[in-house]
Amino acid sequence: MVRLALEKEGIEIVGAICRRKEKVGRDLGELIGIDRRLGITATNDPDAVFTKTEADILLHATTSFIEKAYTQTVKAMEVGMNVISVAEELAYPYARHPEFAQRIDKAAKKYGVTVLGTGMNPGFILDTMIIALTGACQSINKIRARRIHDESPYSVAMLKREGMGLTIDEFQRGLADSSVITHVGLIESISMISHSLGWEFDEVKETFNPIICETPRELPHFKIEAGRVAGSKNIAYGIKNGEAVITLEHHMEILPEETSDSIWIEGTPPVNITIKPALKSEVGTVAVAVNMIPQVINAEPGLVTMKDLPIPRALIGDVRNFVKV
Amino acid sequence: MVRLALEKEGIEIVGAICRRKEKVGRDLGELIGIDRRLGITATNDPDAVFTKTEADILLHATTSFIEKAYTQTVKAMEVGMNVISVAEELAYPYARHPEFAQRIDKAAKKYGVTVLGTGMNPGFILDTMIIALTGACQSINKIRARRIHDESPYSVAMLKREGMGLTIDEFQRGLADSSVITHVGLIESISMISHSLGWEFDEVKETFNPIICETPRELPHFKIEAGRVAGSKNIAYGIKNGEAVITLEHHMEILPEETSDSIWIEGTPPVNITIKPALKSEVGTVAVAVNMIPQVINAEPGLVTMKDLPIPRALIGDVRNFVKV
Repeated sequence: MVRLALEKEGIEIVGAICRRKEKVGRDLGELIGIDRRLGITATNDPDAVFTKTEADILLHATTSFIEKAYTQTVKAMEVGMNVISVAEELAYPYARHPEFAQRIDKAAKKYGVTVLGTGMNPGFILDTMIIALTGACQSINKIRARRIHDESPYSVAMLKREGMGLTIDEFQRGLADSSVITHVGLIESISMISHSLGWEFDEVKETFNPIICETPRELPHFKIEAGRVAGSKNIAYGIKNGEAVITLEHHMEILPEETSDSIWIEGTPPVNITIKPALKSEVGTVAVAVNMIPQVINAEPGLVTMKDLPIPRALIGDVRNFVKV
Repeated sequence: MVRLALEKEGIEIVGAICRRKEKVGRDLGELIGIDRRLGITATNDPDAVFTKTEADILLHATTSFIEKAYTQTVKAMEVGMNVISVAEELAYPYARHPEFAQRIDKAAKKYGVTVLGTGMNPGFILDTMIIALTGACQSINKIRARRIHDESPYSVAMLKREGMGLTIDEFQRGLADSSVITHVGLIESISMISHSLGWEFDEVKETFNPIICETPRELPHFKIEAGRVAGSKNIAYGIKNGEAVITLEHHMEILPEETSDSIWIEGTPPVNITIKPALKSEVGTVAVAVNMIPQVINAEPGLVTMKDLPIPRALIGDVRNFVKV
């Protein structure tokens, strides 16, 4: 995010908060691996940054979970900073965490700032894009969407946390005791779609299952034997009258045969869209978060979601031109 | 639009203005071909409707051109009606008709209403969807998009006005003397993209060319001989440093081999999307216009475009739940 923000005309970076001690006191330029100093020293004392720095917005990327996101960002709100976070649960907290949604909304309104949770997913492909495509439909019977994403670019540590390389039994045990981390976001996406369209479901549920490789899959520093876990498949269903009227699938897999994002809307007219290869999560999440800066600064105070804001867009020109003064 | 609006919970139709004399005095239900009376009598006296009816919004579908759209809708604005029009030039008038854009914006603000031009194209596939997809991009080098649309569902009269069945020479002469009508909207779409992204071009231009069929193409009531015009191809270019960095193609054709909407963004990440078959214009334009009703009612007064409003979405639930009071 810092690297991208530096490329954008009209964005000035004024502070940096880090979590790891070994980063404290180092120049931000060094930390992001560019060959120049930025004159900004990383600190693990958020209050110091929030109280001594004037900023329009805080970009937040430390957690998937709303409680932590709230605790870490509320002080920024208090000093008048808008917030964009890639915490998955913040993308649409009204379903699973209505009490936090209300708390954040209240705090944001009190301090006159806007808070948005976004990212590639939740935040873009399996919610915002689906909702936007339904705009061309007179009526809808069913929606199905599937994202097949290649996890190979992530670190070995991350892949192991995702259960890659485990046996099926180990994976299931890891799911049960939460040592295996899974995709977070489909319930958020399905709820955002539901509320955007006014489409009510009797039940929303999700499943997690391992994807087993039939032949070995090998990355430079990580090899998965045949018969072991090479990915996981998260499926969420919005059920009405006993039938799944929305099905969202998210596959995160090492070296899948091909990657894609597909959306099928059974309606009038039918809509069948395929994005090949799948939009890259690492690159895309950063893009969406930075690109939404003007919309968040311009929005009325409160907790907002992607469904409430003007359509996302790449920032090519000077960012200041898009911000209302 | 009337048929679709009738299906939506929370929309009440309170008046009907028609252009053709033979429709005057007839019940709207009869005019739209349903087997019940709606108790609304069509009139060709707009003032009578505007002054005697209270309505939140006027849906307007009579013309492609902004001057006519303005003249026909300004009295509705005066009595406090918001306006959604499918007039193509109104979808993004800032490029070709800045003076009208200003006039409409001024009138809308004066009377406290919001005016939107929209439709399938311009308004959705070759602008709104492209802009939304760029939201996932950190940077963009080039954008190319192509819509191949089947014109077969339109009336023979309309197909003839589009130059279908002419020789190449006749088509070119028809273009020159405006007896052949072409697609309107690519300049609007390209400008909306340009302004949304802050991407400036040295020049924007468009071309119109016939599509010639190699073998005969036959509809139930219309046949095109081999070697004659079976469609037209409109291409618009946004040019920067001598190179087309945006290219938008719109093919309207009788019985094309296949229909599709494709968007290719050369950027980080690259985005390649295909919608097959192409979204149907007739169905989709009506859908987009009706679906945008809540966003338009909720928006601040003035002339707005699709890039300014929250993402489009299908209306499934009660429309009143989406309107701020």
